[in-house]
Parts: sequence; structure tokens; C-alpha cells
Amino acid sequence: MIRVGIVGATGYAGAELVRLLAGHPAVELTLLTSRQYAGKRFDAVFPSMAGVVDLVCRDYSLDVACGQTDIIFMALPHQLPMSFIPPLLDNGKRVIDLSADFRFRNVAVYEQYYQPHQAKHLIDESVYGLSEIYGERIKNARLIGNPGCYPTSVLLPLIPLLKNGLITPNAIIADSKSGVSGAGRSLSLTAHYCEVQESFKAYKVGQHRHNPEMDEVLSIEAQTPITITFVPHLVPLSRGMLTTLYATPEKSVNSDDIRNCLASFYARRHFVRLCPDNKPPDTRNVRGTNFCDIGFKLDVPRNRLILISAIDNLVKGAAGQAVQNMNLMLGLDETTGLRQIPYPV
Amino acid sequence: MIRVGIVGATGYAGAELVRLLAGHPAVELTLLTSRQYAGKRFDAVFPSMAGVVDLVCRDYSLDVACGQTDIIFMALPHQLPMSFIPPLLDNGKRVIDLSADFRFRNVAVYEQYYQPHQAKHLIDESVYGLSEIYGERIKNARLIGNPGCYPTSVLLPLIPLLKNGLITPNAIIADSKSGVSGAGRSLSLTAHYCEVQESFKAYKVGQHRHNPEMDEVLSIEAQTPITITFVPHLVPLSRGMLTTLYATPEKSVNSDDIRNCLASFYARRHFVRLCPDNKPPDTRNVRGTNFCDIGFKLDVPRNRLILISAIDNLVKGAAGQAVQNMNLMLGLDETTGLRQIPYPV
Amino acid sequence: MIRVGIVGATGYAGAELVRLLAGHPAVELTLLTSRQYAGKRFDAVFPSMAGVVDLVCRDYSLDVACGQTDIIFMALPHQLPMSFIPPLLDNGKRVIDLSADFRFRNVAVYEQYYQPHQAKHLIDESVYGLSEIYGERIKNARLIGNPGCYPTSVLLPLIPLLKNGLITPNAIIADSKSGVSGAGRSLSLTAHYCEVQESFKAYKVGQHRHNPEMDEVLSIEAQTPITITFVPHLVPLSRGMLTTLYATPEKSVNSDDIRNCLASFYARRHFVRLCPDNKPPDTRNVRGTNFCDIGFKLDVPRNRLILISAIDNLVKGAAGQAVQNMNLMLGLDETTGLRQIPYPV
Amino acid sequence: MIRVGIVGATGYAGAELVRLLAGHPAVELTLLTSRQYAGKRFDAVFPSMAGVVDLVCRDYSLDVACGQTDIIFMALPHQLPMSFIPPLLDNGKRVIDLSADFRFRNVAVYEQYYQPHQAKHLIDESVYGLSEIYGERIKNARLIGNPGCYPTSVLLPLIPLLKNGLITPNAIIADSKSGVSGAGRSLSLTAHYCEVQESFKAYKVGQHRHNPEMDEVLSIEAQTPITITFVPHLVPLSRGMLTTLYATPEKSVNSDDIRNCLASFYARRHFVRLCPDNKPPDTRNVRGTNFCDIGFKLDVPRNRLILISAIDNLVKGAAGQAVQNMNLMLGLDETTGLRQIPYPV
Repeated sequence: MIRVGIVGATGYAGAELVRLLAGHPAVELTLLTSRQYAGKRFDAVFPSMAGVVDLVCRDYSLDVACGQTDIIFMALPHQLPMSFIPPLLDNGKRVIDLSADFRFRNVAVYEQYYQPHQAKHLIDESVYGLSEIYGERIKNARLIGNPGCYPTSVLLPLIPLLKNGLITPNAIIADSKSGVSGAGRSLSLTAHYCEVQESFKAYKVGQHRHNPEMDEVLSIEAQTPITITFVPHLVPLSRGMLTTLYATPEKSVNSDDIRNCLASFYARRHFVRLCPDNKPPDTRNVRGTNFCDIGFKLDVPRNRLILISAIDNLVKGAAGQAVQNMNLMLGLDETTGLRQIPYPV
Repeated sequence: MIRVGIVGATGYAGAELVRLLAGHPAVELTLLTSRQYAGKRFDAVFPSMAGVVDLVCRDYSLDVACGQTDIIFMALPHQLPMSFIPPLLDNGKRVIDLSADFRFRNVAVYEQYYQPHQAKHLIDESVYGLSEIYGERIKNARLIGNPGCYPTSVLLPLIPLLKNGLITPNAIIADSKSGVSGAGRSLSLTAHYCEVQESFKAYKVGQHRHNPEMDEVLSIEAQTPITITFVPHLVPLSRGMLTTLYATPEKSVNSDDIRNCLASFYARRHFVRLCPDNKPPDTRNVRGTNFCDIGFKLDVPRNRLILISAIDNLVKGAAGQAVQNMNLMLGLDETTGLRQIPYPV
Repeated sequence: MIRVGIVGATGYAGAELVRLLAGHPAVELTLLTSRQYAGKRFDAVFPSMAGVVDLVCRDYSLDVACGQTDIIFMALPHQLPMSFIPPLLDNGKRVIDLSADFRFRNVAVYEQYYQPHQAKHLIDESVYGLSEIYGERIKNARLIGNPGCYPTSVLLPLIPLLKNGLITPNAIIADSKSGVSGAGRSLSLTAHYCEVQESFKAYKVGQHRHNPEMDEVLSIEAQTPITITFVPHLVPLSRGMLTTLYATPEKSVNSDDIRNCLASFYARRHFVRLCPDNKPPDTRNVRGTNFCDIGFKLDVPRNRLILISAIDNLVKGAAGQAVQNMNLMLGLDETTGLRQIPYPV
Repeated sequence: MIRVGIVGATGYAGAELVRLLAGHPAVELTLLTSRQYAGKRFDAVFPSMAGVVDLVCRDYSLDVACGQTDIIFMALPHQLPMSFIPPLLDNGKRVIDLSADFRFRNVAVYEQYYQPHQAKHLIDESVYGLSEIYGERIKNARLIGNPGCYPTSVLLPLIPLLKNGLITPNAIIADSKSGVSGAGRSLSLTAHYCEVQESFKAYKVGQHRHNPEMDEVLSIEAQTPITITFVPHLVPLSRGMLTTLYATPEKSVNSDDIRNCLASFYARRHFVRLCPDNKPPDTRNVRGTNFCDIGFKLDVPRNRLILISAIDNLVKGAAGQAVQNMNLMLGLDETTGLRQIPYPV
């Protein structure tokens, strides 16, 4: 059994990793770290896990991480991971980082939106963990920069169409809607039940840090500079993310072209599902799963392609894709431990 | 006291009219009709109204409507109103119709999206009840076609900018999100609690009947044919509607131009509130009120104007705007009976 | 116009006082204090109030409170009020305190459940602000200890039956369920959206500080020592409180006796509504209002009386009852400014 | 592989059976019936199941049921099962019935609360499927009457204490709260999103048909007639049930006695979890799982024992317990296919 550790196990992404890895047939959870809850049993923090996980949370230390694990998930806010990760790699560990620290190819963009980077030497080596796109490179990676939830929901529908020249690379709009768990488990008025319930609003309009992340990947994949308009919104649900994309189809592209392109691109990928016509994706259908559902509508008179994607922000948008990447790194089927059947309701 | 009747009082829009009119200082509620609940007290259908409204629901009849009311609100699905309304007008009543029957100038468009029109002779006379735009004509109208909720949320932010040439009339996108009460009180799986809770999805993508309604009004106001891309979504909240609009600013338009245009256009209108920069509208802030909150962000590098509006779909999107129109018709201050203070939470 | 101040205006109870008092015809809001938001406009903290309230929040000071107000609402956590209130009374102000500081007759009980009391000389003078029960004393009071939300929901159904000897004073059980706003606006994991959504649980089982408050009032009213079993629960809703009471009817008491007792006791009180048989109260029916709806079922074979009450914890359970008490103190009709019509949905 | 069929697969309990059985390692789903959706793929009705279940729904027929299955789950409303089941047994099938038809030992009680029974000859043979209590009999049963959700939540905490004489058999009260999925997927105003959201209410007070079901089992187990007071409530959540029980401890019983009794009774049963002191059960902790979490508080001064249980009404309260019973019938570990790890959020 591969020994696996989670650094930052008591945030929502960390706890979701616990859920997925505790049921994973090829690995053993050997280390959970949490600064806030060090010394407490994990199931005292998440009582749902009583009888399921019996580990005690520990403070992070390099020694323990090296001694007790073979592969490590970092579920911390950005900035800490870039100091923790280099010595782990030096000790032969492989790391999947869920923060933004190793997502960017262009360190200047990272530094503009986040802070000075302290492990620039690893940027070239790190692999952007969008599993369906970079699977081959992920297999051999030592260090994965796991994608943000918004970028995952934006990139999966767009990349095949851009690579195949079915849409123009300019004037793309992404109107995204996220559940509250995307903001994490730390306390803020934004996540107070009474402020969220019966509320729907946009936030960080035109200023969200996932925007440059999307732009960079799209530009690389389309081999032309792309900068999209991105507006995130907060929906009163715990988990789920839906993105509505507006793009301009290239001349004479029809609905079949779009469908065939997406269908063939994702033909062998279990987690991307193409929705039937007039049955647009619903966050409820992917809840708790690693699926990304994609639907579309070509509006010929207005020359507009509407693409819609739905993911669970904690699964395909975070912990699930991280486990999918681990599977690829370990040479396993990418769906191992990720075939949870969704709740009908 | 003006005697007021509500036809279709036990749907959500009808019941919201009851709420607003029961507290209105210048009118008296004299007739509530309901086919389904005829013979039952209104407060047996809506127990919250016990001690507030003591009327008994009746079946609709022309005689009763003529004998007991001076002004009538029609809160029925489309099709019935166009047969009920002509004899009411012949009897000297004034009518505010919340259905689509008298919203369109171009009857051919109505017939394409709904059904054959049976009162075409009234179309020219009827006035589109977007209070802030057609207030002068509303004052003297006998028949109001009260706007749809989506069109209200789309038109209020766009019209001032189009009329003043600050945005281009083509390539406008409206990404709208509505609470569940917009679908009415009739039973459908779409409104089942367990199907809505923890769900977010688009519906009728590129096919919603409010699209031609918006297009017609925008085209008239901008004096050029406009056809926008419109995608409605369903949000897990009871009441509230948020629309995110994407438009292209004309050359050298800056943020101050946008703000000044909207601020001066709505300077004397109580119900349109302009949000501060970086404080985008939130449906919670307008809940239960007739406000339309508008915010915007000009994204200069991408040459994109993002406009966001929030209304309560049952108030400014239906019953509230209908009462506002009644106020205008009766020569009252348009805010009479509509100054409910929103809940802080 | 009476000048009114709210100390602690940016918590949920305080903001609800703002909502009710801003629309009150006999008073003028002249002072809002908030330590956290001093110097900010109230409508910057609660944007729903834009165009409705234009006051700026201030730090509390005795001088300002004395100079700018005639009557003061204290919406602070317990302990602060008992130091703020004595000098206000000395300066001729009247005070309605929403904390626990002046709710108890027996200071020893207060000190057992809270902390040492620092204004014991005022306890005898203060009046427990359960408006329907202590209305006569409230009229002349200088200082009101406004009841807790749970006690209000428990006491209103029980007191008439106990006073009239229809139920036995022992073995009463109160199973209460509260919305999240009852926990206030301060941050805690308990109020995090993702921890509340799809959750239902009991808390502080047999240990809640509202228990001795209920016991004291019941004992006084029944003129015999009463100590009830009380279990509070947290419901995923923003506002609303439902209490299910289990009591033992005295011999040969029948349903009509119960109904007649409650109906006559509350015959002239607008805010207590008796529900029809088999139409139990629903928090939704009282949302945003000062109503307390009461229903009951007498289970003869099991010799059990089930009483159910519904209130809005922020209105009848806090701010609304406080305004009702102010009305009584000012010699106004107790419903002045409190006749908001509930939303149908 | 055992071939399994679900009759009534498109209701919520039926679909939950699909979720659990599609992932079960020892059985193969071979038949899904649905009158309403006959001829449609199951994943067209529940799009979340795309890529997971590829069966087409069929109309029920005895021939198909006999030809394609070895064991059958009936997820129909009561009344139909008692006509469908006898010929299935005659054909050597084993049946787990989720309706009330075979839950009662005393057919007169059934007929009083439901309707005339048409398969009385099977009542003695059928086994009440409360897995932890009747496991031995379930192993050899041909026909299981799977318990109602409310009875499951009431019986599991009470039976050990009654059997061991730690509480008195009279004056037990069960105050239960259920999520909306308990009312099923059929349309009703009660389940309309806008009627449930921000609502909490009791229903069928003292009249619910699960009451005699609990009474019968308790009376059998305690060997004395028991009739409890039961009040169900509707909570705004999709799935989850919490029951708060009030009982009278026998003389000199202390907290350790209670804990020891429950702990030893359920010592080897994976699905019953005893909560730590002062950490009462939360429906969120059992969501999607077959767990029943139990907590308690002994209130010595008031001589009252408060017991709280939490289950997922669709899992331990319906489909999960049905699968647990199937496991017992097949000689499998009772947890087979039921070890889904709960979502942390």
C-alpha cells in the first residue's frame, strides 16, 4: 500500500481528500496534519467520520512527513506550500499541491496576483494537474499544481474547441457560479448562513485570481494570447459549480461539429460526460463525484455558442482531481477510488 | 378609496399583490378571485394572512368584477387575460395585466412565441408597464402589459446606456438567475424541494419567451434592431433575480461616463439604486422590496462592460411594479404603499 | 417625535430594530451605535438600507446617548448593559434591554447562569417585557428586561393554561427549534453556511440559559415551583422559531376548554393568533412579523396536551417585542409600526 | 452474482436503492420498474446516473420479475405490494418490501390505519426488518417488512433501555423531524420549494401512521403495552431525520448505566454509533450513510432521560436498511456495499 499524507486535512478540501482516500483501495492514509486541531482525533473535528477514520491530527513537520508517507497532498492556502515542498521533493516524495503556488508557467503573473515566489526553480518541472489535458506529463511528475475550481470548469469545455479551431479565441466570457464551500472553512461574514441564505451575488468582478490562471492555460493550448472575461458568483449551496461560457463559433460551424469535437476529445475519459441536447448540466448531478458534465447550445442567428459545465468544486474542482492525478502518477486507472455513485437527491 | 380586485389571487404573484395592496393607504381590496380555491377564505390558503385579510376567494365573473372594483390586476397565465380584459375595458375599468398578453407591440412576435392573439385591437393602446421608462404613458393608460421579471432586470440597466450611445447595440449577453417562485405555485418536479436544493442549472437555453420581449423593447428604445443572447438559470432561493449583462462600450467611454449616465437617468426614481464600486448587487438586499439595484464594472483591457442588476422577481419583477403602475395611473406618488423596509437578514 | 437610539445596531437584533423603527410613525431614529463599524454609514454595513436609513454608526458614549435620545434600546450581549443602563436612567432616559441582564427577579439565579450582577438595585424595578402578560407594568416602566426568544415561545402558550389550572405544573417538556439568526451575526463555525445547510441538531441539551428564565416566570405565574425540560435545536433557516410543548392536562379537561382558555386570554391581543384545528403553526407564517401563532392537539388516550407555538425569533422573539414594549411605554397602540404584512412566500 | 430487481425504482427510495445496489459487490441490478417512466432509460430520469447505470425502466410484470431476478425490493406505496408479493414468493423469490404492508404483527391495527389486508396468510411469516433487532430472523426470511423511517429512529435508542429495564415504559414522547424526501417524489404543495424553504412546522400531530407501528414493536420488545406520544415535523433539508425522545429513567439509573447499556447492546453493530457526551447527533453526520447516531443526556433533577437519534431517512430509514437486510438474507456481512464514507460537508 502506498502511504499517503494530507497536509491541511481539516479544511474542506483536506477533509474531502480524507473522504476519498479513506475509501481508496490502493493507498493507506498515514498522516493528517492540522495546525488548528493538532492533537485531536480527526473524527472529533468531523464526527461523520467516527468509525471510518481513526487518525489523530498532527502538526506539520518535515521529518514526520518524510517518515510516514510516500506521496503528499498539500491542502493549504498559497504561500506556505512553496516553502514546504522543496525539501519534500529532495527527500524523494511526490507532491500534489492544491494551492496556486505551482499552477503558473509564467512566474511574473503569479507574482503579480499573489506574492514573490520562493521556489522558482521548481516551476518548470511542476505540471498543471488538469488530468484530462496533461495526463501524460502528470504520470511522470514529481510535483503537481492542482488546478483551481473555476479554471477546471472553464478549461475543460473550451480547450477541445480551441485546439480544433471551432471557436474564435477572442471575446470569450465565463459567467461562473460557485457553492459556498469554495470559500473554505475559515470564518467570514461571507460564509455566515444568514448572509448566504436567500442571497445570490457576484463578487470580485473582473478581479478574481483564477482569471490569469485560465488565461495562461488557454493561451498555451490555443497557441495565441487569450484573455477572457470572468465573473464569479456565489450560490446558496454547499458544493457545486456551474460555468456558463459564451463564445463565437468560427464560420459554418454547426452543432454536430461541436458535439463531435467534444465527444471524440473526451471519448475515453470517464469523468467528462456530454449532456443530451436540451438537458443542460445541473450541479446536483455531479454532487460528490469527480464528473464534469458539459452541455452546449449553438445559437445560429446570434452567432453565439453557449457552453455550460457543472462540477463539484470540492471534487473535480479540488480533491477529486487531485486523487485522479495521484492515480495517474501511480500508474493506476484514473478512476480508482473515484467511482462514488451520486445521490439521486 | 379606490376599489381594487385581483384576478388569480392565490398564485405567488397574486398573493404578493394581496400583500402589497392590503397595506396600501389609497386603495381597498374588494375582490380576490381563484378558480382553485373559490369559496375558501384567502387566509385559509395563506395562513400568514390571518388577522390581516378577511376576504373569501371567488370564482371570476365579469359582473362581479365590474360591480365590485374600479381597477383590476390580472395575475393569470397568458391566454386567459386577452379574453377577460376587453369587456372590462368596455365597462370602464382599468386593467393591469401581469401576463404576456399585452406586452408586445408586434403581434406577430407574440403569436410566434405564444398563441394566436384574440384582442389585437387593444395592442396599440396597451402600454408596456416598465414604470421608470414609460411612466408618462402609463399615467393615462387603460391597459398595462406588466413586464416579465427577466425583461425588467435586463432593460433597466441597458436602456439608459443604449439611449445615450455608451454601449454598442450588438453582441449583448444576459446571464440571468432566478429564484424558484418565478415558476409559480403550480406543481412541477422542477419546483420540488429535493430537486432544487443543492442544485444550480440553466434552463430553456436560448429558447425562453422573455427573450423576444427584451429584444422588442431594446430595439424600440435604441432605434435599431437588437437581439440579445439570454440564458436563464434556476437558483435555490425562493425569491430574487440577478442578471449579469455583458456589453461592449463605445470608444473612449470610461467608468464615470457609465455612472453618470445611470445616475442622471434614474436621479428622481426611488426604486433604482446605483451600487458603490466593488459592492455588486445582491438579491438579498432587494428581497421583499420594489428596488432594482444596479452595479457595473468596466473592464478596459478587454473592452467589456459588465452590468449587474438585482430585483425581487415577485416585486419589481411582478406585483410591485404592477402596484407602481397603478400608483402612476391614479396620480399618486409612485412609491405609495411600496416603501416596505427590507429585512436585514 | 420621540427620539430613539439603538445601542449595538449592527447585530441582527439591532438591525431588526432599525428595520422596525425606521418605519415607525411615532418615533425618529437618532442614534445608532456600533463598536465594530463606528464611523461607517449603516447602509454600508447593510446595503439593503440604502435610500432608507442614512445614519452613520457611532461609538457608544453616555453623553451622546443622553443628548440625542429619549428612549434607548440596548441590543448588546449580556454584561455590558448592566453597566451602561444605570447612568442612562439617572439621566431620565427609559431603556429597553434585549440582553438577559434584567430579565430575572432572582439575582442568584442570574449569577449562577451568567456572572455577578453589578446593578442589583435595579432588578426590583425592572419589568420583564413579555408584552401580553406584563403590559400594565410595562406602561410605567423605566427599564424593561426584554424576554429571550425561547422563553417567549414557551411562555405565551403555557401561562394562560397554568393560570387557569388546565394543565399540571410538573413534567412539562419544551422541544424548541430555532433559525440561525438566533446565534447572532458574530462569526462561529456553528453559523457557517456549509455546517448548517442539510444539518439538523440539538445543542446545549438540558444546559441552555433560557431554561431558568422560563422556570422563573412560569413559577411566578403558576404560583408554584416549576422546572421544565427544555431542548433547543438548530434548524437550517435564517429566522423562525417553533416550540413543541408536551404537558399533562388536568382531569376531564377537553379540547374546547383549551381553545376557550387561550382564545379568551388573548382575545384583545393582535399578535397572538390561535390556529385552526389540524393546521399547526408554521414559522413561515410569522416570518418578519410580531405574531405568535399557537396551535394545540389534545391526545385523550395518552392524556397528553401538545401545544405548538411559532414566532420569528428576531421579531416577537427580540426586536418586535421590544418595539411593542416601547409602544406600551409611550401610551401608543401596541401594534403601532408593527403591522408589516407577511410575505406569502 | 445475485440478480436483483427494484419495483418502483424512480421514487426517492427506489432511486436510493439503485445508488446502493449499483455499487454493491455481490449483486447485479437486473430489473428496474417504473409505471411513470416505463421505456425510458433510468439515467434519463436521474441524469446523475449517466455512465453509472444503463438500464431501461420497465412496467412491472410477474413474468419479468420472476425471470430476471432472484431477490426483489418493493419500493411502492402501501396496498400494491400485498397483491404483488404472494405470487413472487410462490415462485421462489425473496422480497424486501419497503411499504407498510408487512410491518404489522396485528393485522387489525394495520387495517385500522391503512386498508383491508389482502395477504393475511403472510403476516405471520413476514419479518420486521429492523436489522439490529431482528437480524437472526431476517437471515432466514422470505419476506421482510422494512421499517418506516420514523420507527427506525425511535426504536433503536429505546429498545435496549426498555429491554434492560432502565426506563419506564409509559409516558414516552418522540419529537421527530424529517427532511422533505421522506414525503417522496410525487408532487404536492407540501414539497414545493417555496413552501418548504424558511419553513418549519409540525404535521399530522398525534395522527401519523408510524405511531401504531412504533407502539407495536415497543410493546412486543418490552412485553407490556406501550403507546407513545409522537409528533413529526418537516425540516427544510432534503434528507435527514432527527428524533428527540423524552423518557423517565427508573430509580437510581445513572448516566453510565445508560451508556453501558447502549454500548454493549450495539457493541458489534457497525451502523449504530454512540455519540460522546455533549456532542449530540447531527443529521449531517449520517447523510448518505446507513449510520444511526445516538446521543443522550440524563437530567437528574427533573428525572428525565433525553435520547437523540439521527439517521438519513432514505438510507437507514429506507433503502440502506433494506440492503442491510438483503445482506443478512444472503449470509453476507451486513455492511457489504454500505460503507460509503460521508461527505464532510
